[in-house]
Amino acid sequence: MNIVLLDPRQTESELWSISSTRQLAHLQQHLDIQVGDTLKVGIREGKRYLTEIIEITEKTVRLKPLKEEAVPAKLPVTLIVALPRPKVLRRLIMDAVTVGVEKIILMHSYRVDKSYWQTPFLQQLEHYIELGLEQAGDTIAPKVELYKRFKPFVEDILPGLISADCPAYVAHPYAEMRMPAAIQHPCSIVIGPEGGFIPYEVDLLIHNGCQAVSLGNRIIRTETVIPYVLGRLFSL
Amino acid sequence: MNIVLLDPRQTESELWSISSTRQLAHLQQHLDIQVGDTLKVGIREGKRYLTEIIEITEKTVRLKPLKEEAVPAKLPVTLIVALPRPKVLRRLIMDAVTVGVEKIILMHSYRVDKSYWQTPFLQQLEHYIELGLEQAGDTIAPKVELYKRFKPFVEDILPGLISADCPAYVAHPYAEMRMPAAIQHPCSIVIGPEGGFIPYEVDLLIHNGCQAVSLGNRIIRTETVIPYVLGRLFSL
Repeated sequence: MNIVLLDPRQTESELWSISSTRQLAHLQQHLDIQVGDTLKVGIREGKRYLTEIIEITEKTVRLKPLKEEAVPAKLPVTLIVALPRPKVLRRLIMDAVTVGVEKIILMHSYRVDKSYWQTPFLQQLEHYIELGLEQAGDTIAPKVELYKRFKPFVEDILPGLISADCPAYVAHPYAEMRMPAAIQHPCSIVIGPEGGFIPYEVDLLIHNGCQAVSLGNRIIRTETVIPYVLGRLFSL
Repeated sequence: MNIVLLDPRQTESELWSISSTRQLAHLQQHLDIQVGDTLKVGIREGKRYLTEIIEITEKTVRLKPLKEEAVPAKLPVTLIVALPRPKVLRRLIMDAVTVGVEKIILMHSYRVDKSYWQTPFLQQLEHYIELGLEQAGDTIAPKVELYKRFKPFVEDILPGLISADCPAYVAHPYAEMRMPAAIQHPCSIVIGPEGGFIPYEVDLLIHNGCQAVSLGNRIIRTETVIPYVLGRLFSL
């Protein structure tokens, strides 16, 4: 937690207040905060501030804003990823948010176990996003969309995300073209499930406008390949 | 597990044999292998082969090698990282191995809790490396070194890893120079602990030959920043 995210309503008085038990526990256990310390705070979907701690009680920390700070820029990328195993979902969302993905799409794919769509973790996406924003020091949540059917998504939705100025790359081990690097334009990237897309899916993605690109001959787990690809694409 | 790693002794007869309970359980539970299927196999510190499954018993799977396959190249990088929390260690090692780091150094730092050096997970490094190799399809284990004292490592060991052709970059949020991208030479990268290096440590690293470079104003967790930086550095 590198900033404390506040709801705009918590910042309406002259002194702002932190009252979430999760945030208070973190501040007390990990940061050992004291009156007079400075604290970085972000307002959800708004600005970021350096603040000073004015008062600490059991249920509230009160803050005085000192000065505005820059909110980090997003990466102009839509991350389209086959729904991962529930235990991977939290990390995947947090990491994507932390590095600054603008929009996240979770979709079905042949090798996604249908039971994954029933996981209670899917109800926690807002929370994972909050953790990712607080890690990064960001305040703007990415948009998240879920598509439980592969073909309708790829045929009806995906083409609307692709243009000459905004290509979509699907990571595919047997592609001849290499994944581009240090690009200067927005794009979408499409990441398959554990075990990869089946050939029918890769064909349908390509037929609907995706470029198949290779990352070399190492097989990298979904949750690891996401920061790996984003570091490569946006390295300017 | 995208290849099965075998000890050279398991490949001395005409038919090779898999007898590790972990590997057998994975093959049976996740891959549902049958006689006649092909299976990718790597020989530790050696070559990689496509094989055919000849026999499956409860305690052994016997294989016939069909043809040699390419072992993926390593990234010419030494990853120097402050020892992470035990629960992060497994993922960090697996990911570093999967993306192809040549050498891993775990070192102490002021914000590394001394208890981390006592964790039983440190006895499992060989196992994490094996998992990373089997994920990537690689056969060559990276070298791993541990340094429990920061200053002697930085003053006595680190300078020997740095040369004009092989710089060392320390990720530092306030550096003016950006982390390079798409480099064509070997390097070392130095990644701090949760909370970062203290100023004394950054100064000592720079004094001993490291270049401080920035990755922008997002704060990214250690385990996420490693694939992020490696994707950026080696994107040619």
